[in-house]
Amino acid sequence: MKETTVITIKDVKLKNPIMIEGLPGVGHVGKLVAEHMVEESGADKVVEIYSPHFPPQVLVMDEGTARLVRNEIYVDQKHNLLILVGDYQCATSEGHYELARVYLDIAKKYGVKRIYTLGGYGIGKLIDKPRVLGAVNKLELVDEMRKYGVEFKENEPGGGVVGASGLLLGMGALENIEAVCLMGETSGYLVDPKSAQAVLSVLSKTLNMSIDMSALEERAKEMEKIVAKLREMEKIQAGPISADTDLSYIG
Amino acid sequence: MKETTVITIKDVKLKNPIMIEGLPGVGHVGKLVAEHMVEESGADKVVEIYSPHFPPQVLVMDEGTARLVRNEIYVDQKHNLLILVGDYQCATSEGHYELARVYLDIAKKYGVKRIYTLGGYGIGKLIDKPRVLGAVNKLELVDEMRKYGVEFKENEPGGGVVGASGLLLGMGALENIEAVCLMGETSGYLVDPKSAQAVLSVLSKTLNMSIDMSALEERAKEMEKIVAKLREMEKIQAGPISADTDLSYIG
Amino acid sequence: MKETTVITIKDVKLKNPIMIEGLPGVGHVGKLVAEHMVEESGADKVVEIYSPHFPPQVLVMDEGTARLVRNEIYVDQKHNLLILVGDYQCATSEGHYELARVYLDIAKKYGVKRIYTLGGYGIGKLIDKPRVLGAVNKLELVDEMRKYGVEFKENEPGGGVVGASGLLLGMGALENIEAVCLMGETSGYLVDPKSAQAVLSVLSKTLNMSIDMSALEERAKEMEKIVAKLREMEKIQAGPISADTDLSYIG
Amino acid sequence: MKETTVITIKDVKLKNPIMIEGLPGVGHVGKLVAEHMVEESGADKVVEIYSPHFPPQVLVMDEGTARLVRNEIYVDQKHNLLILVGDYQCATSEGHYELARVYLDIAKKYGVKRIYTLGGYGIGKLIDKPRVLGAVNKLELVDEMRKYGVEFKENEPGGGVVGASGLLLGMGALENIEAVCLMGETSGYLVDPKSAQAVLSVLSKTLNMSIDMSALEERAKEMEKIVAKLREMEKIQAGPISADTDLSYIG
Repeated sequence: MKETTVITIKDVKLKNPIMIEGLPGVGHVGKLVAEHMVEESGADKVVEIYSPHFPPQVLVMDEGTARLVRNEIYVDQKHNLLILVGDYQCATSEGHYELARVYLDIAKKYGVKRIYTLGGYGIGKLIDKPRVLGAVNKLELVDEMRKYGVEFKENEPGGGVVGASGLLLGMGALENIEAVCLMGETSGYLVDPKSAQAVLSVLSKTLNMSIDMSALEERAKEMEKIVAKLREMEKIQAGPISADTDLSYIG
Repeated sequence: MKETTVITIKDVKLKNPIMIEGLPGVGHVGKLVAEHMVEESGADKVVEIYSPHFPPQVLVMDEGTARLVRNEIYVDQKHNLLILVGDYQCATSEGHYELARVYLDIAKKYGVKRIYTLGGYGIGKLIDKPRVLGAVNKLELVDEMRKYGVEFKENEPGGGVVGASGLLLGMGALENIEAVCLMGETSGYLVDPKSAQAVLSVLSKTLNMSIDMSALEERAKEMEKIVAKLREMEKIQAGPISADTDLSYIG
Repeated sequence: MKETTVITIKDVKLKNPIMIEGLPGVGHVGKLVAEHMVEESGADKVVEIYSPHFPPQVLVMDEGTARLVRNEIYVDQKHNLLILVGDYQCATSEGHYELARVYLDIAKKYGVKRIYTLGGYGIGKLIDKPRVLGAVNKLELVDEMRKYGVEFKENEPGGGVVGASGLLLGMGALENIEAVCLMGETSGYLVDPKSAQAVLSVLSKTLNMSIDMSALEERAKEMEKIVAKLREMEKIQAGPISADTDLSYIG
Repeated sequence: MKETTVITIKDVKLKNPIMIEGLPGVGHVGKLVAEHMVEESGADKVVEIYSPHFPPQVLVMDEGTARLVRNEIYVDQKHNLLILVGDYQCATSEGHYELARVYLDIAKKYGVKRIYTLGGYGIGKLIDKPRVLGAVNKLELVDEMRKYGVEFKENEPGGGVVGASGLLLGMGALENIEAVCLMGETSGYLVDPKSAQAVLSVLSKTLNMSIDMSALEERAKEMEKIVAKLREMEKIQAGPISADTDLSYIG
């Protein structure tokens, strides 16, 4: 395998579906949302993507079988969605650009007119009510997204958006595909299902669909317990701390 | 040399041989097993593989001659085996994928139907009786391998299998070549002939062949002495230690 | 996007224009000068350059829109100039050489006969009167540049010139395109509009054009205030310091 | 420049010349020898080699002119030699292999039947009488080289030979070009003209030519003075030291 390889698992016809990208990233926010949507909707896998830009590795499943790391695209025909999920992003610039090109080619094949890319926005401390920040590749989308509660702040995120979530906006613009990036605020140190809930809540409004969030809520509660224990341990060591304690040392 | 180069040293005809991969890795377990098999069987070298993805280096042999680093494939015609051994694996993702592609192409040329990849599974401490863990690329193989004493545990190895041993499973599956990875438990800090013995013992059962292990046993005894000295040195410095002392500081 | 992509935004005809390169680098001196020239002259953007050798990233603009990182070429038709500016340089050797090749191909397309590359020359301490050092790709240019106040010193800069500013000289020479690198002395630790003023002052003389520098002066004054505060903080901590205090700890 | 570029400066006809490689490396031993030979013989430059695998950089010469980093081949017609010298070796494995391929193609174009590659062998301490170690790509060459005082020791150098000096042996063997690597012992911490003298002394015997070494001797004496000062400084700090003091802290 010297080249990125796209394997079509199932042929489906779609009419201008919306693409959702939720690959691994800060707080695994995008991945949590997209995988939740795949599970709740019972979407079918239609594409597998293998690439020499992914780590040279197989993952071992519970029963002892191993499979090559990959990205996958699922189709939720009821809601007319293509959902991009996966094990890894690339490690190099060249790989990132090549894979984004592959994702866009698939989007174009299915006639995708809009892409939502999902991610986390690391702010370096725990927060109780994560906001959802937005970035768009077409000015008109700002007002539309504000209606759903997405916040746009000057110079946020300051460092831009890195990886597939960013490139699909930037490269999509060059091909006239509308794209919106939704970023849930998150500490950046822990997998964050609460931030994922916030993003999913906004996303379901924009898609005008209702999604059962109980599985994500369950995971958020478990994570709350872990965080509570961490705070407790810290209190014992260092006295009372406030809600926005910097947890950067947990990594 | 801009491309990986495969040089055929000797033409042989084989009917559905089994391929054994034992390239350098954790504890050099796979390499020890595969090189032992080459030596014991008097297998013939049939292929040399050179690649710009290997280190830019020659190795100097005892008599002063130097040769380019490479991987090699030997044929044991009596047991119908292709054995892949070598000096190095690649340093980059792209290199790993490209070389795995080369190994699989060679396997297909010879009609290989099954591959055993051999390696070590680092557990961070010395152990007396290393288990042999397995991963397979087809569910049916789990039960078959259990019969030979291979253990399959949920989430082990947790980090998946990296390098040629993993990729041959993952990429082999995409081409319908059965593959099994046998991993001997090992500290991860020392070359481990005892773990190699455990792997070879399982492998010889699956291949239904008997292999003289005395050379490996000899090396295992030598290593035992080195470990004993290390323990002694440690005892003097820090008092009695148990059998599972963490030796991670020996690197 | 697997390849560097050059998009022509606007067709213009020019007769042997001069090319100015001001990409990010030491003290952002070159970038400050080139962007100032674009703003003051109201130059038109004629080319956008995207590349997988740039970081895999979009930048988020004030209003919430994102755009792919890129380099750009502007045309100042009044002064017959092509001005190369951009967000980033490349991270790899191969990328640097490829992009320099792209810039030179564009230069040749427009019939460019001379290139000025602009940068900073880090000296590790603050200075009040930055000199402008030069390097050229044709011996005759040394005397010509000395007339405009450019200094040439033996073995300066000792480490050569790295990146686009260097490669355009070196690769330009192989194609008979005259090129001059103007380097403003700068600490190397801070964005340096004062050094940019020094470079711009020399450059405007060589181009025989007058450029309003008030915007750069404004930025230089702001930076002076920041530096003054840094010095003040330091004085409190460590007693009086001289004008050439090493500020290498400010990063 | 996306590809390595070979520019022929001058056409010369040679009959089975010998190629000498002296690129930068440990103690710059090979570079010192090869550049000395170019200067003493007044050899003509016949080839320039530019490559995106070299650093993206120009070097600034004394008079203020800059030139792209490169490797060069000189011809000493009197002694029937091709001499390969240069500014840098490559930073990546792929680059090393590609450039070695380029050097070998040039060697074959000129009908080269034997290559001498020159380098240093770092031993971690200063020595008064550096030996010259050898590695060859054909067993018969061991005895021939021993006659000239080259030493061959089991497992030396243990780590093999890295870079152009190694690859020309390894890749040359695959094309039936004889090659010998001569390595002068050196501390590994300092540029070492004394080690270069030892290598040149052996090389001139094998080539049956006499070379004026006074320039190298001069440089060796200067370096002796620097080393003497370093020893003096050390003595003051730490008492008397022996001739084989480890100087690894001088980087």
